[in-house]
Amino acid sequence: MPSTAATAPPPPPQSHTPLGLIGLGVMGRNLALNLGDHGVPLVVWERDPDLAAIARAALPVTTVWADSAAAVARALPSPKAVLLMVQAGPAVDAVIAALRPALGPDDIIIDGGNADTRDTERRQRALTAEGGPKLIGLGVSGGADGARRGPALMAGGDAAAWEHVRPALAAIAARTGDGAACCALLGDGAAGHFVKTVHNGIEYAVMQALAEAYDAMRGGLGLDVDAIAEVFAHWNTGKSKGFLVEIAAEVMLAREPDGTPLIDRIVDRAGQKGTGRWASLAALEHGVAAPTIVEAVFARAVSSRSEERRALNREPPPGRLDLHLDALADAVHAATIAAFVQGFDMIAAAGAAQGWHVRAPEVARVWRAGCILRATLLDRLAVAAEAVPAGASLLQATELRAELDTALPGLRRTVAAASLAGIPVPVHGSALAWIEGMTRARGPANLLQGLRDRFGAHGFERTDAPGTHHGDWRRE
Amino acid sequence: MPSTAATAPPPPPQSHTPLGLIGLGVMGRNLALNLGDHGVPLVVWERDPDLAAIARAALPVTTVWADSAAAVARALPSPKAVLLMVQAGPAVDAVIAALRPALGPDDIIIDGGNADTRDTERRQRALTAEGGPKLIGLGVSGGADGARRGPALMAGGDAAAWEHVRPALAAIAARTGDGAACCALLGDGAAGHFVKTVHNGIEYAVMQALAEAYDAMRGGLGLDVDAIAEVFAHWNTGKSKGFLVEIAAEVMLAREPDGTPLIDRIVDRAGQKGTGRWASLAALEHGVAAPTIVEAVFARAVSSRSEERRALNREPPPGRLDLHLDALADAVHAATIAAFVQGFDMIAAAGAAQGWHVRAPEVARVWRAGCILRATLLDRLAVAAEAVPAGASLLQATELRAELDTALPGLRRTVAAASLAGIPVPVHGSALAWIEGMTRARGPANLLQGLRDRFGAHGFERTDAPGTHHGDWRRE
Repeated sequence: MPSTAATAPPPPPQSHTPLGLIGLGVMGRNLALNLGDHGVPLVVWERDPDLAAIARAALPVTTVWADSAAAVARALPSPKAVLLMVQAGPAVDAVIAALRPALGPDDIIIDGGNADTRDTERRQRALTAEGGPKLIGLGVSGGADGARRGPALMAGGDAAAWEHVRPALAAIAARTGDGAACCALLGDGAAGHFVKTVHNGIEYAVMQALAEAYDAMRGGLGLDVDAIAEVFAHWNTGKSKGFLVEIAAEVMLAREPDGTPLIDRIVDRAGQKGTGRWASLAALEHGVAAPTIVEAVFARAVSSRSEERRALNREPPPGRLDLHLDALADAVHAATIAAFVQGFDMIAAAGAAQGWHVRAPEVARVWRAGCILRATLLDRLAVAAEAVPAGASLLQATELRAELDTALPGLRRTVAAASLAGIPVPVHGSALAWIEGMTRARGPANLLQGLRDRFGAHGFERTDAPGTHHGDWRRE
Repeated sequence: MPSTAATAPPPPPQSHTPLGLIGLGVMGRNLALNLGDHGVPLVVWERDPDLAAIARAALPVTTVWADSAAAVARALPSPKAVLLMVQAGPAVDAVIAALRPALGPDDIIIDGGNADTRDTERRQRALTAEGGPKLIGLGVSGGADGARRGPALMAGGDAAAWEHVRPALAAIAARTGDGAACCALLGDGAAGHFVKTVHNGIEYAVMQALAEAYDAMRGGLGLDVDAIAEVFAHWNTGKSKGFLVEIAAEVMLAREPDGTPLIDRIVDRAGQKGTGRWASLAALEHGVAAPTIVEAVFARAVSSRSEERRALNREPPPGRLDLHLDALADAVHAATIAAFVQGFDMIAAAGAAQGWHVRAPEVARVWRAGCILRATLLDRLAVAAEAVPAGASLLQATELRAELDTALPGLRRTVAAASLAGIPVPVHGSALAWIEGMTRARGPANLLQGLRDRFGAHGFERTDAPGTHHGDWRRE
């Protein structure tokens, strides 16, 4: 815990070294206001005059306004630290290039955008190679509200550089009930941005699990939106308590001016070209099974084909949903656990492949408040991450495994009932198959290996002898 | 149909222009023998002396042996055509660089390896930019046996160049029962290699569907391998008749010297870092839902964590599988159709994005014989691909939709029964969810959009008004 951290809002302003901040769009402006509240002196620049005018009206009068990126750097005392809140992509490279002449090897750039992990690694390598400043990749979660009132901050990069900027960032971060700041260095290199990518992938999966539950309750069980809001609100009092469950109830309660449910006026199409897709690509690249995350991405792809879905529409459904709400609650909980465990598997695999020395328990702790995934489950995930050896599945943690096993019968019943009733449950079905597959000593991949050897002479391992073997297949 | 095509094996040797062939590993050597059988004069080179010696002993005495890649090109009459059967990756670039000085703009290089589509596009662009030879990307399926006796050949690239090499390649290709050669130009650019990638992705899915069926029959229904072999053999007499079903029965029947089933000695771990992974990455890159293919890739990833699965093993299963074999047969068939339709979706999306002008019905026709996916279903898929508008889901074809709908109740029952019995069915479950999602006019993604607007002000479309809208959320 940083010594500057206060334990209850609003914290008294502390003495901080000045921070540069470039980019005053919605996220940058709200972080600036938050930093201002906590007494962090700011030197800022925003290229867009309209955005600059909005920020100028909102930021404290003590804010120092520079007229270029380089001027921000020049105005700071050494070691200089500049936070970038600009659009991920080429704009980050452009700002770094502009800052570069004004920064030395002890200075620090913090990229707070949703950068692609590979871009962050590339920039860190380039800056290191030329003896330039340290680059910290910082995942910022919580949206505009979070940026203003307390985001979750996921950092990756050089430890000494981090120690320099940590007090200011810890001061503005979200706090858990016990006062811990949701702000940590999670590993070397691009670990912070990778963790943010995985966070968003899990977010896709949890949201899709809730959408499937909504669908099952509305179309399958015939509940109205008020009843469904009550169910979500009830779930938010138990083991599934968390932000997404809480706002699912809110969305159910939202009304049109005429009193009808807003949800019925929202088009059922969702995009999938963002960080959920990046997370899915990373899972494939690292050879880690993250089916529950990928199914959520693909469910959005299916949702976007709404014209074709209308043309292919099947009526009526094959049957009524035969399911208790308790089973559905357990199903959502088990699917959520599966998505998180897959996400931690990804972080472990990527961290090992890239040499990031990721601190998995810190990942869970940082997600406890401020971010979209915040939920009481994170407390238990942090315990699980402490309990298992580095790189092992969190399912090896006894208490988490017990929590999953308790929910598993409900997941089985939910997938079975939805399957018979014609209700698509891609995330629940995928989570179930993954759980069952991961908890079986022996699966049927021996048939895959037999087929591959039969048609392609790929060879197989034997249970009773080392080496690669071939079957004595009758050749055509 | 090429005029040189014979209708029954063994075809009489025809008069062909000479072809260069570089790379005489297993695939190259077998293609060379096949080309020799069909009277195609060959100029060959193999860098590895051991492989060259094996090939020299096997190839016809009329084969001309060159001592370098460039020497192969110099020995050919114009327009020169050289088939590369070298390891995909840098070796292809090296051989193209070596050939380059000896080839002009009317000459042709055919890359018959499992190239990454992006590499093929890059090479085609580079050769075009410098006025070099045409590069045809050629997917070759069927393994060593196929190469020797009749592969499926999937070409992409320049149409005039293809016309020049088509007769020789059509002569050696697999033939359908009605005498059609499984060899075609499927589109421009890297269309051929992309189609091969998708072919392999579908292959992953179909194999996994068969493995899940085996698992359900063996562990769930308690059948022995002889009984399961009979089931597969029976399926191979009906609508699911195809090569993979046929050899699944063979694998069941394979015995150890002591008479016990070979399948029980094969380790249940399968790799997933090949073309199935490429296909999955492509689906994500193009925003096309191909969950059934990706689940098969991830099932292999789960299979490879065998130590961890042993540590997490769950005993005993929660219940017995309550399922009729007819339902299971329908389930495998429906999952297979889903995988194919997703594959055709991918080909349509990639083709449109890249401007390849893909001929989808030709894709189905080429897959009818010679390749691992060969099955009678391909005849119906070709009809479906003719019936729907370019880019539309094959589910819009009336007969294919009817075939799927007939099998759908069995798929629903199978996923339900397996879910209750604790048997993982990732491919069947995913196929079911995808089918149900694609055949519903209205899904629950409106909740996703409501949640995204609530936490991130992402906005949503309304069913009753154009533009982007926001909910009147109570802000924290």
